[in-house]
Amino acid sequence: MFASRPVSDPISVAELAKLTGLQYRGDGQRPISKVSSLSLADATSLCFIRNDQYLEALVQSQCAACIVPEAIDLPEKLSAAVVLSDNPHRDFLRVIEILGLYRGNLEPGSVHSSAIIADSASISDSASIAAHCVIGERVKLGENIQIGAGCVIEDDVEIGDHSKLMSNVTICFGSKLGRKVIVQPGAVIGGDGFGLVFEQGEWLHVPHLGNVLLGDRVEVGANTTIDRGALDDTVIGTGVKLDNLIQIGHNVQIGDYTAIAGGVSIAGSAVIGQNCKISGEAAIVGHIRIADNVTVTAKTLVSHSIEQSGVYSSGTPMMENRLWRRNAVRFKTLDQLHRTVKKIEP
Amino acid sequence: MFASRPVSDPISVAELAKLTGLQYRGDGQRPISKVSSLSLADATSLCFIRNDQYLEALVQSQCAACIVPEAIDLPEKLSAAVVLSDNPHRDFLRVIEILGLYRGNLEPGSVHSSAIIADSASISDSASIAAHCVIGERVKLGENIQIGAGCVIEDDVEIGDHSKLMSNVTICFGSKLGRKVIVQPGAVIGGDGFGLVFEQGEWLHVPHLGNVLLGDRVEVGANTTIDRGALDDTVIGTGVKLDNLIQIGHNVQIGDYTAIAGGVSIAGSAVIGQNCKISGEAAIVGHIRIADNVTVTAKTLVSHSIEQSGVYSSGTPMMENRLWRRNAVRFKTLDQLHRTVKKIEP
Amino acid sequence: MFASRPVSDPISVAELAKLTGLQYRGDGQRPISKVSSLSLADATSLCFIRNDQYLEALVQSQCAACIVPEAIDLPEKLSAAVVLSDNPHRDFLRVIEILGLYRGNLEPGSVHSSAIIADSASISDSASIAAHCVIGERVKLGENIQIGAGCVIEDDVEIGDHSKLMSNVTICFGSKLGRKVIVQPGAVIGGDGFGLVFEQGEWLHVPHLGNVLLGDRVEVGANTTIDRGALDDTVIGTGVKLDNLIQIGHNVQIGDYTAIAGGVSIAGSAVIGQNCKISGEAAIVGHIRIADNVTVTAKTLVSHSIEQSGVYSSGTPMMENRLWRRNAVRFKTLDQLHRTVKKIEP
Repeated sequence: MFASRPVSDPISVAELAKLTGLQYRGDGQRPISKVSSLSLADATSLCFIRNDQYLEALVQSQCAACIVPEAIDLPEKLSAAVVLSDNPHRDFLRVIEILGLYRGNLEPGSVHSSAIIADSASISDSASIAAHCVIGERVKLGENIQIGAGCVIEDDVEIGDHSKLMSNVTICFGSKLGRKVIVQPGAVIGGDGFGLVFEQGEWLHVPHLGNVLLGDRVEVGANTTIDRGALDDTVIGTGVKLDNLIQIGHNVQIGDYTAIAGGVSIAGSAVIGQNCKISGEAAIVGHIRIADNVTVTAKTLVSHSIEQSGVYSSGTPMMENRLWRRNAVRFKTLDQLHRTVKKIEP
Repeated sequence: MFASRPVSDPISVAELAKLTGLQYRGDGQRPISKVSSLSLADATSLCFIRNDQYLEALVQSQCAACIVPEAIDLPEKLSAAVVLSDNPHRDFLRVIEILGLYRGNLEPGSVHSSAIIADSASISDSASIAAHCVIGERVKLGENIQIGAGCVIEDDVEIGDHSKLMSNVTICFGSKLGRKVIVQPGAVIGGDGFGLVFEQGEWLHVPHLGNVLLGDRVEVGANTTIDRGALDDTVIGTGVKLDNLIQIGHNVQIGDYTAIAGGVSIAGSAVIGQNCKISGEAAIVGHIRIADNVTVTAKTLVSHSIEQSGVYSSGTPMMENRLWRRNAVRFKTLDQLHRTVKKIEP
Repeated sequence: MFASRPVSDPISVAELAKLTGLQYRGDGQRPISKVSSLSLADATSLCFIRNDQYLEALVQSQCAACIVPEAIDLPEKLSAAVVLSDNPHRDFLRVIEILGLYRGNLEPGSVHSSAIIADSASISDSASIAAHCVIGERVKLGENIQIGAGCVIEDDVEIGDHSKLMSNVTICFGSKLGRKVIVQPGAVIGGDGFGLVFEQGEWLHVPHLGNVLLGDRVEVGANTTIDRGALDDTVIGTGVKLDNLIQIGHNVQIGDYTAIAGGVSIAGSAVIGQNCKISGEAAIVGHIRIADNVTVTAKTLVSHSIEQSGVYSSGTPMMENRLWRRNAVRFKTLDQLHRTVKKIEP
């Protein structure tokens, strides 16, 4: 279903440096046919290191060449050629792109005959649509879009140029995705929110009328869910990165370039600033605000608004269970302990 | 794929009051063409407020009309018409229903030609089945059921009248869903449970023979999973509301009208009472019982049975990480601190 | 869609004992037509008990027969026949297998006409493929494989003999699954990992080139996600059991026979030993190592490597919220309390 990988014609270190516009040192004729981690590299591998912490590993490695920070002091006995970069990881990613090494892209402009596409949908000739997709009424798909197998795109969805849905993604009615958005398998964008209105001993059903808006370059992880707004929209800013199995409630707003790790839950109407980092399995209660540039550590419960940028935590340290039990039981009388000490304090 | 939205013919405040059986004050001729939140309302919007906390926002709003509590003291300078209600949120939801504003309903009685339906399945003429669904042997679907695109309904499933599965839902063999059940995309009902039987250094595979039973008016969130029972059934009571990404283990029982927020995990054979509220990312260990009318706060670990109704919590408050580290390290010697204080207490 | 259940011809206790190679006591002519839990058993049910804790329940039960530990002291007044076993649960599972009571298996060798299968895929004649599956280029499926409805198996995937995917599973390009692997609905194996490279105010997209490797007899729960490696592979060992809604990051390694409960998040490059037990909603940070034979209790945050086998915990005990608040607020000044006590300690 994917575009064929390019024949892995080896490329020389010198050619690679030329393609990327970077300088190199060492044997420019060494052939490169793949990228690898240092520990698994062989004689045709390109690697990268971020800083001199990895120099020893580089010396030990069999790799053909390595992208290294330009300011680094290189050891004398280095068999690998080096390519100099002001940001080795970025240039390593550029090489992956330039050599076409990623294998998960669909062939451009291929629409599988088993896809069900509404007549009123507007789909560019460059769009790729894999088998067993369903595309609803009035859907608009931009240029060079890829829709993986088994995706359902409901009515009135709009997706910007160069965006990509992997397999079995669900985009519910009315959602708007920007350009270069990537959605991993199983993600659900635009499910109804969790509205709770109690009446005569029973929860009423709350139909959700808002949409979900994803900015440009948003990435959404596998099986992550983003609910539509109750009346207004749920809004995910430009360049936001969401890991797997994240729950984002109705009417949440997330500022540009915020990154959120796996297993986080964000309750309804929370507003999160720009450039935040929310670590794994944190939870954020509803109707609060988090300032820009806030980092929340793993498993923290954000129970109230955060006004100042900074790092925030809750929880207790991990211990051997035997010791933990002994201390945890004392947490139950911590207030009493506090009062006792207050009393005997001179 | 959905039923077309009604032409948004404006309706006057007076007509709306008549349709809902409610009284109004102010200009009955103002046209209403949509519902909105107060902050985004324009001159044809209907809004609602729950109490007088929102009166100032109502005064500032551009809305045409607002459903308000009947006992409220209205300010003199109010440009909006008001509709009086003993429960404004409920009546606002009724307006959404009456005006057909929700866009996620399939056209009644439409079965897409790409759906694969077993001959032995029994499906009423009023059922709607979207593209690329798969419906197994002996499945029974009641009146006015909607099955979204890409759903798989395995053998021997029964679904009651007026129930609705959104796109890409999986209902595994033998599950029984009541009337007016709503299941959001990606949810899995009836996967095999997590049986652990260890034998000679290896976990045995544990086939699960029980089913999942969902009562009437149960709502299930996106990508939530409810496992089938090992031998007996997993049972979800009437009117239970489940948010997204909830895990419900084998043989769990949940009492009527309990509501559970996103990211909660409930281990096998836990029994949860009626009218409970389990907040986000709480976890409930297996084989315990929770009484009726229990509220569990966010991220709490319910590690033992709860016999009395009430509110229960675990965890520590969120702090700046610098302060948190200082206190958290002392948790490791809390028992020692306790003993020291005991010793020096006069 | 499934193989028909065997006609539930009753089988006598004596026949059952013979089939399983076990001894029995009591009336060998009693007919057995199903397996049940003790509490719901009727006169044709087979049950089992693990130890004498359940003897009273067995005496009260209506069951036809019960598999019991061979060393047990049986009460005199027992109407049920008993089958003697050195591991009753294991032999109970064997009976389920022998009598074919599990209903979730596809008919062998049936390929539904709606499945889209690439010409270059290599699929054995004994494989079963349900409706609306998509199977990519160069996929290799072993003997007696079952692929549930709506599954997407992308290019270059290999799946070993006797493995089974339930409905709506996604296996991304290049993943390799061993023999007798079972994957529950909605699981995603091989989504791109959560790579974070920041450059000029924006997160770069990080294409992932590694694969996911699952050992023999791995079980994967519903809607669980396992990310592919960045360069090297993500590796799940032999016999690992994963519950529902687990997140496994890129390049994680999990040792043989480790079991992980629902809602756990494991961040990238964590290495987990063999025979570990990770309880529900625990979280494991990235780039750490956990030794063999480690148990982590529910909701624990594993924030650093664990070198020694044992049981590890974090968190605080659950309390009534009123009491919890009183103690939790003191956690904020625990360090100060500690210092005060140090000062006044004689």
